Amino acid sequence: MPAAKKLGQQTVFFQNPPAIIASGAVVGSKEAEGPLGKTFDRVIDDPYHGEKSWERAERRLLEDAVQIALQKANLSPQQVDFFLAGDLENQTEASALAARDLGMPYLGLYGACSTFYEGITVGAVLIDGGFAERVVVAVSSHCCTAEKQFRFPTEQGVQRPLTQSWTVTGAGAVVLAAGGSGPVVTHATIGKAIDLGQGDPSNFGAAMAPAATDTIVRHLLDTGRGPKEYDLVVTGDLGIIGRDLAEELLKDHGFDLADRFTDCGILIYDPQKQDTHAGGSGCACSAVVTAGYILQQIQAGKLQRVLGVGTGALLNADSPKQGETIPGIGHAAVIERR
Amino acid sequence: MPAAKKLGQQTVFFQNPPAIIASGAVVGSKEAEGPLGKTFDRVIDDPYHGEKSWERAERRLLEDAVQIALQKANLSPQQVDFFLAGDLENQTEASALAARDLGMPYLGLYGACSTFYEGITVGAVLIDGGFAERVVVAVSSHCCTAEKQFRFPTEQGVQRPLTQSWTVTGAGAVVLAAGGSGPVVTHATIGKAIDLGQGDPSNFGAAMAPAATDTIVRHLLDTGRGPKEYDLVVTGDLGIIGRDLAEELLKDHGFDLADRFTDCGILIYDPQKQDTHAGGSGCACSAVVTAGYILQQIQAGKLQRVLGVGTGALLNADSPKQGETIPGIGHAAVIERR
Repeated sequence: MPAAKKLGQQTVFFQNPPAIIASGAVVGSKEAEGPLGKTFDRVIDDPYHGEKSWERAERRLLEDAVQIALQKANLSPQQVDFFLAGDLENQTEASALAARDLGMPYLGLYGACSTFYEGITVGAVLIDGGFAERVVVAVSSHCCTAEKQFRFPTEQGVQRPLTQSWTVTGAGAVVLAAGGSGPVVTHATIGKAIDLGQGDPSNFGAAMAPAATDTIVRHLLDTGRGPKEYDLVVTGDLGIIGRDLAEELLKDHGFDLADRFTDCGILIYDPQKQDTHAGGSGCACSAVVTAGYILQQIQAGKLQRVLGVGTGALLNADSPKQGETIPGIGHAAVIERR
Repeated sequence: MPAAKKLGQQTVFFQNPPAIIASGAVVGSKEAEGPLGKTFDRVIDDPYHGEKSWERAERRLLEDAVQIALQKANLSPQQVDFFLAGDLENQTEASALAARDLGMPYLGLYGACSTFYEGITVGAVLIDGGFAERVVVAVSSHCCTAEKQFRFPTEQGVQRPLTQSWTVTGAGAVVLAAGGSGPVVTHATIGKAIDLGQGDPSNFGAAMAPAATDTIVRHLLDTGRGPKEYDLVVTGDLGIIGRDLAEELLKDHGFDLADRFTDCGILIYDPQKQDTHAGGSGCACSAVVTAGYILQQIQAGKLQRVLGVGTGALLNADSPKQGETIPGIGHAAVIERR
């Protein structure tokens, strides 16, 4: 007997779709200088955010995004049932310390850069399942904490290959609620960890494209929908290389998404002017683009129904050195205008 | 309006309590030599488990535990809706690679050593909410991967202070299902990240005791139950020091748990004979004790209702060096004989 709110193999749907009643998007100066600069709530020019370490700065970005979202919703942390968060720091430390500071009951998530969409999924499950009225989902990333942790000491300024993406400095948060106005989350597709043998930690796009493809294909098959039923299919941080690979792989599966398919890592920077190579990445990439631009487009009526697909590269600093290849994962959620 | 399946501030309950239809507990030789040695499903004597690195060994332990649980339930991975897992390796790499190998749709969780109970909570939410029929929850830890990652190179053999715990080498898995026989999960209490300013990474018990206390107190207040309604309240890995601190803190809150209060980290080793100092710790500590001993005691009718409280210390290797203190967290679930 299949579960009552499950479609096909990996997709769940929400009988009373939770609403995104508020969002907060905080970014650094590089993100503010990009094409979406005017869509963010707050810009922090100082990469240290007035703190003594990049890690503390990242935590403050995360807390800022949550506070902005809560203020817009006119809620205090005490009025929130659960706080779902994650980030790229080892042991998701930015989220843990933010959870301590904010004081909300906390479920820590880790889906690499897919964590925002994983959080939207689990948050919507909690609300539609009747376990919560209001959930805050938030993630962060910081180019300086990510670089030192996954690759080289940041100060070393190692030359970046053209396949590499630029980790977004920022944080995104949404308040999901059982009632209230705002775009709603109607479905979520939980991805598999897919690994086609790409082992280069400077090319996450190639590592994640098969997983993004798998999740999009699975979503369409599970729901019986065609790509044209979406105004936009937007992946998290495949970047230019990964997005093109995914487009090819999707065609192999018989789905031509054409110009309705883009990626948050492509939208957020101007690669020519900003020297960002393959595009943007990081937990915050899909989070700030979704919490800013995409929700604004939906609220303005320019987009009716969006399939957002958070994408993550499931590696740590040591795993490629120990000979592991890099599994990718994609978690998808349907966000639509009500 | 409070959520339909929420009690008080932090507790959810399950209208159709999911059953733990099978479990798997795999441990290393040190755990097998302890007082619970006969309660585990499989013992791996070689810390490398035939692999070239401790990290690969840990991943295999995790996969072994899942396979054992699935075999007992007579299920293939394809018959499982979702796989919920986490571990202590940076970016929860053991879980990510196990998810890849096992092929089940994957939600990565991180609650440090509380992850097993976090997983039971999210798994039960998915099932009781109608989103899944069967969920596998699994976690792992390995003394050699944890030591090198959080403290010192393992080979260095640094002398351990008496406040330090011993990370359990092992993995625990459970299959949660909407139907079937086995102990059921009736409630879960999602914890807050609590930090009373303990910053010593060699004394996790002291760091976690306030969080464990907070969750237990919250659970009792939310449910209106007294400690006597539980045959056992068992924390995850407070160890000897943390358990005694929590007992004192609970008395300050007016709850005397007396001899019905113990800790998986106390149960798993003989501190005198095994030189384990403060007791056992690690994601696998609460997982293998719950998946083995506790479920067996419930099934044998020796325990009717247990409050299990996974406990986690939310630090990484750098956070104490950057001047951060260590927040703790406790996630609780009620497991009872049906």
